[in-house]
Amino acid sequence: MRTLDVALADRSYPIHIGSGLLGEPGLYARHAAGRRVAVISNPVVASHYLGPVQQALARAGARPVSVLIEDGEQAKTWETLDRVVGAMLAEQLGRDSLIVALGGGVVGDLAGFAAAVYQRGIPFIQVPTTLLAQVDSSVGGKTAVNHARGKNMVGAFHQPLAVIADVACLDTLPDRELRAGIAEVIKHGFILDADFVEWLEANMERLLGRDRDALERAISRSCELKAQVVAADEREAGRRALLNFGHTFGHAIEAGVGYGEWLHGEAVAAGMVMAAELSVRAGTLRAEDAARVAALIGSAGLPVRGPRLAPERYLELMQVDKKAAGGEMRFILLEGLGHATLKGGLDARHVRDSIAACMQ
Amino acid sequence: MRTLDVALADRSYPIHIGSGLLGEPGLYARHAAGRRVAVISNPVVASHYLGPVQQALARAGARPVSVLIEDGEQAKTWETLDRVVGAMLAEQLGRDSLIVALGGGVVGDLAGFAAAVYQRGIPFIQVPTTLLAQVDSSVGGKTAVNHARGKNMVGAFHQPLAVIADVACLDTLPDRELRAGIAEVIKHGFILDADFVEWLEANMERLLGRDRDALERAISRSCELKAQVVAADEREAGRRALLNFGHTFGHAIEAGVGYGEWLHGEAVAAGMVMAAELSVRAGTLRAEDAARVAALIGSAGLPVRGPRLAPERYLELMQVDKKAAGGEMRFILLEGLGHATLKGGLDARHVRDSIAACMQ
Repeated sequence: MRTLDVALADRSYPIHIGSGLLGEPGLYARHAAGRRVAVISNPVVASHYLGPVQQALARAGARPVSVLIEDGEQAKTWETLDRVVGAMLAEQLGRDSLIVALGGGVVGDLAGFAAAVYQRGIPFIQVPTTLLAQVDSSVGGKTAVNHARGKNMVGAFHQPLAVIADVACLDTLPDRELRAGIAEVIKHGFILDADFVEWLEANMERLLGRDRDALERAISRSCELKAQVVAADEREAGRRALLNFGHTFGHAIEAGVGYGEWLHGEAVAAGMVMAAELSVRAGTLRAEDAARVAALIGSAGLPVRGPRLAPERYLELMQVDKKAAGGEMRFILLEGLGHATLKGGLDARHVRDSIAACMQ
Repeated sequence: MRTLDVALADRSYPIHIGSGLLGEPGLYARHAAGRRVAVISNPVVASHYLGPVQQALARAGARPVSVLIEDGEQAKTWETLDRVVGAMLAEQLGRDSLIVALGGGVVGDLAGFAAAVYQRGIPFIQVPTTLLAQVDSSVGGKTAVNHARGKNMVGAFHQPLAVIADVACLDTLPDRELRAGIAEVIKHGFILDADFVEWLEANMERLLGRDRDALERAISRSCELKAQVVAADEREAGRRALLNFGHTFGHAIEAGVGYGEWLHGEAVAAGMVMAAELSVRAGTLRAEDAARVAALIGSAGLPVRGPRLAPERYLELMQVDKKAAGGEMRFILLEGLGHATLKGGLDARHVRDSIAACMQ
């Protein structure tokens, strides 16, 4: 087991990474002993892991109940949250209870937001069961639900007490979801660590083959990189925005084709290719580095082109993106591999052309 | 104009108290200049004050839009919040925009919660227009909406940038609401300041007659007392819970008769009489002090008895109250006038008897 620390003063927390961790009572005991606990999960994940997690909690001295939500992005709504809150109130869970989020990004975002707002906030532990959730949504405290007018438009920053990333969960993860998770791993290399990009170029086969050591190393490095950024800028006032590399285009892709059609990681993958293309046109990235971006994404079996929509439709969808500051659109561009920057005042023509150049 | 400071490290903020303040551009300028602003209000309040506030904001260099919600407690729901968020997204308000909450407690709680969760949190300014909101809900950063299973069950701690309490707004406040606000003023005396209780006993006539100086002094002292408690315990881990004196019974009254039948302040008034009665039975308060509690409440024209419900129904309604810790019920009792304490492990018979003794 490796343990990283996300350094956030009085909200610092550990990320434990290893095999078979979710059934370890010792990892829960400090936070859960003597408490009532709501384990929030979905039926698919619960069929594999709810039993072991509840047993571990019980052995850690907690009194767990479970609340299941629907599987998939469409469950990330007000209505689901309202049902979760209702179920917890029906169980008379008080302000001293604890939430355990057991599942992928949807469960993590929704359960984390439930923890942020239940009786004005209770603590929670993340037990991410997908690669995407292990490397991305479980680090940094972002929680949210979607609004009819946009993804993640209602949410909170709420840090977990601990993250338990069990690599053994990835054995049963569908290939498509594994690749979607790799998209975020790659992203951390592109924006923060050129050496890690090289390592990924050399080890993509092992990752796709689910080599456990390779996965543990990739998750660990990825979390470490993200944790450094989050520690420096918890509320996304500046540097943290760089983690959204590929996301402005990616959110437009997800919204444009309808949420759930493309996986988040797939949309971000094509979005990163667009953002690299835009970086070349804006003069901050060499064309051969943009080619390496596309090649690494392609080698992971991820889409290197976005869906065919009118470029104007992309722009329209990006306007409501929450990174739009005071009406001006800003983009995260690469300045060489391993370095990113947030830039406003770009030529709208460059944006349109980059989209058009990277569509199916 | 008097200005108090609520000392909360990097979230400290001023409370301005005086006549005609809501139309003063200078009080908004520092926070609103150059920003887009959503003024959230209801039709009744808006008919009096939306114009002046929007003008002041425009003169302060902001670009305001307004979002109106229904009047009354029944508007404090998910659905209303969802509409507010939708309206703000339709106006393409970004993460750098600002909310101004213009109205009573419902507007303040809902608009404050909207600010807490809109795109994971934006700042807000409180412009409370009722006495209750001026002395209570605008100090301390508590925001929330109601759930079908209980009041304020979903919310956040989110401190405003500033509170602008305009005493001139109270001129048009219905008598019943004025009295409901006085209930919270009195409460601050009972739990924190025996001298203030004496001052209130001597000045109740002036307050009910809307003497502006008396009101300003009462609001100011009340906010000061509450601000001291909040500064010492922002997240209600301990001392802050004392501010809920009368509220455990009060929430049960509100829920028992249906939200909206009794004003919050009325329910708290009767709840304080019950809590004082319980304090006598638990041996922490002298009977003559409990009589002073009831007398002061009565002199404000507030109810000194709760509605007639089975005591068991009261208990049932109180069980889901969010102050119930780990299943054990705790009560805020008086230890003499001006001193309160949080106590668990009370004799259930004493609780029942206190309720029965203070019912209509």
